[in-house]
Amino acid sequence: MLAHRLIERKRDGGRLEPGEWRALAHAYAAGHVPDYQMAAFLMAAFLRGLDRGETSALTDAMLSSGARLDLSHLTVGRVDKHSTGGVGDKVSLVLAPLVACLGVAVPMMSGRGLGHTGGTLDKLEAIPGFRTDLSLDEARRQIDALGCALIGQTAEIAPADRKMYALRDATATVESIPLIAASIMSKKLAEGLTGLVLDVKRGSGAFLPELERGLELARTMIELGADRGCPVVALLTAMDRPLGRACGNALEVEESIAALKGEGPPDLMNVTYALGAEMLVLGDAYPTLDAARRAMEVAISSGKAAQKFQEIIEAQGGNPGVVDDPAVLPQARECEIFAAPRRGLVARVEPRAVGRGIIALGGGRTKMEDVVDPTVGFVITAKPGDWVEAGEPLATIFARDHAGIGAGQAALRQAILIADEAEPPIPLISHRVTAAGVELYSAE
Amino acid sequence: MLAHRLIERKRDGGRLEPGEWRALAHAYAAGHVPDYQMAAFLMAAFLRGLDRGETSALTDAMLSSGARLDLSHLTVGRVDKHSTGGVGDKVSLVLAPLVACLGVAVPMMSGRGLGHTGGTLDKLEAIPGFRTDLSLDEARRQIDALGCALIGQTAEIAPADRKMYALRDATATVESIPLIAASIMSKKLAEGLTGLVLDVKRGSGAFLPELERGLELARTMIELGADRGCPVVALLTAMDRPLGRACGNALEVEESIAALKGEGPPDLMNVTYALGAEMLVLGDAYPTLDAARRAMEVAISSGKAAQKFQEIIEAQGGNPGVVDDPAVLPQARECEIFAAPRRGLVARVEPRAVGRGIIALGGGRTKMEDVVDPTVGFVITAKPGDWVEAGEPLATIFARDHAGIGAGQAALRQAILIADEAEPPIPLISHRVTAAGVELYSAE
Repeated sequence: MLAHRLIERKRDGGRLEPGEWRALAHAYAAGHVPDYQMAAFLMAAFLRGLDRGETSALTDAMLSSGARLDLSHLTVGRVDKHSTGGVGDKVSLVLAPLVACLGVAVPMMSGRGLGHTGGTLDKLEAIPGFRTDLSLDEARRQIDALGCALIGQTAEIAPADRKMYALRDATATVESIPLIAASIMSKKLAEGLTGLVLDVKRGSGAFLPELERGLELARTMIELGADRGCPVVALLTAMDRPLGRACGNALEVEESIAALKGEGPPDLMNVTYALGAEMLVLGDAYPTLDAARRAMEVAISSGKAAQKFQEIIEAQGGNPGVVDDPAVLPQARECEIFAAPRRGLVARVEPRAVGRGIIALGGGRTKMEDVVDPTVGFVITAKPGDWVEAGEPLATIFARDHAGIGAGQAALRQAILIADEAEPPIPLISHRVTAAGVELYSAE
Repeated sequence: MLAHRLIERKRDGGRLEPGEWRALAHAYAAGHVPDYQMAAFLMAAFLRGLDRGETSALTDAMLSSGARLDLSHLTVGRVDKHSTGGVGDKVSLVLAPLVACLGVAVPMMSGRGLGHTGGTLDKLEAIPGFRTDLSLDEARRQIDALGCALIGQTAEIAPADRKMYALRDATATVESIPLIAASIMSKKLAEGLTGLVLDVKRGSGAFLPELERGLELARTMIELGADRGCPVVALLTAMDRPLGRACGNALEVEESIAALKGEGPPDLMNVTYALGAEMLVLGDAYPTLDAARRAMEVAISSGKAAQKFQEIIEAQGGNPGVVDDPAVLPQARECEIFAAPRRGLVARVEPRAVGRGIIALGGGRTKMEDVVDPTVGFVITAKPGDWVEAGEPLATIFARDHAGIGAGQAALRQAILIADEAEPPIPLISHRVTAAGVELYSAE
């Protein structure tokens, strides 16, 4: 009866009180509200919206449905990074050890890939033996010892969100800013953070392609954090093309390790440094973004960041040899060059088409139960704006077999557009959003 | 994948093609689309609406999900009546035998009561032995023999509608005109009708209280019928007070039998004659509404209509003695007068409060599984506009026990408002809607 009344109210554009959000979320987590009622409610919420107070109440309701990672004994700041997801986005793998080795604890909770976007857990699990299913206790002990743990959303954390997210995925109710913001923040707040950096992707390959929607998500999350003593800073970054060159789980681990050694592609390095500087300042380790950035450059050139990654891998059961020798990673059986079909400007490298190509190769998911092949994917060296000659290599395809190579060729023919002229791509990092407002990002 | 895409499209205000409606409804009936996806879809449909073509396609999709009653061998017209539901609305019990005894076949499919409104099946089942669960074969044989069968929606008829209606009830997606219209018409068209008369209730006790919404439902159903060779005529009738005096299953059977003998309350007789005349003209038995009405008056005064009801009751396993002796009906243990608390005008007899009172007495349902007690209810003799003295009897309460009498007194204190002045009630029959348009109803 409760659920029916709340569905009706939200359907008619009304609002729920905090106690009602809590009762609904907890009853759903406990199985007392059936999926079909929650599905109707979520569609009404998607179409009618939530006001600021309701988004806040939903966040608290989902947070309080589960346990929290208690890190209050730590004297250092605890800062995580969240990305809205994209293709080739392996920033977390580089960022977590890099920030952790500079004195800010990084309790990083990530997700799996779904649809055209990849997921950090899938990437980490490409490393032989790597376990992402740490309990909260294990994660806390590892953060005490190493300053970092790379885990998934355990059954203990925000179970209402976990169940609701799976339902939203099946019922076309994902792309709602208040629902997204409450879902992310309920998990992040459960990590006991003192700060959060948000990477909001924009452009054709992003979840919310339009700049205005990305800014709205950023502002919503900044408000939610501010109300709970967890300052949030958001950077808006480009996802009209893949980030870096590698797209595919094992290939992205290899590129991440290269980045930790200072050999990553420039776009990946710049986004990593920009997000990392925000984390280090939010975590009170450095007074300015510039100072933080210089410290990161030193941590990379000295080998300290790569060593931290090695320690994390070892602590989580993975083969630490991967840092010195990427051949430890599982390797695709077949690989083949993709060559430019004509002379001209690279006008577009379309992330959704690349992502769909990875699914076609067996390296992505269309539903949560799908098993991913870590070996397959693309290394795409061509970037929008490059001038190329006919026959010039633009990418390498990694596949399980000959049929996969064919699927990869077809995907890249869709993804990479060569033309006589091209629109300029979206700036790599375009805006910075804090509680003080939005500013254009000043690239160095 | 199909369902997800269709949910998304409806969510964004798009339309589904006829083949998509059919695929969705059939897959849902077959259990291939889970309830939670259909629930999200229905909420999107509720909030975004369906255009005329979609409503039509949904009607066909639900109709074709099941079997039909084939009455094409009959040379007489086949006409049913559908009411949008109310309190005290026992018209079907009077109308079906009355019209059937004048040469139009009445394959009447009815529902059960839910919430504040009663249902014809529950009323019929108050007659000892009466079976409403005839198979389509049994119904056809009975219509051949008697010109009438009074049945429920069998599992064979429009199973997609049956399942979808139960889900809408649980997910606050009932009050949508296209969804209501498609649901009713899919069932009615499965009866193989040559015409349908619609009783659209308006006023505070109606499902769609506002006149405009009632007219919209009427127009939608008229269009759906016209496209399928089943002309529909709708009358808009008052449901700002109960119809007739008896409210409660066995009590309403008793009042219906009285009406078949010419002793019904004037409002019940007038609504029955008005709807019956439309049925007899639609069924080609009489050339004009006036001629049809005179024939009905004769059928009642001659005893022919009451005899037809007796034959139907006997054919469906009920005790036909009820027509001569209402004491055959189950009787409430306790009864008590409800007296006017003060002198004044009866300003309101609120149907929803009366309906809730019947539920409180054990005679109604809040969910489909509830068992109803046929004996309980009210006979309310006071009508809006009556002048009453303090202490004058306004109603009789029929209950299982003393506590029930108390609940009944409380309900009637809520339902019956006595004041110094009163707004005039809604006209008993206010509008007549046909394919030609809307006209004000000219009362005799």
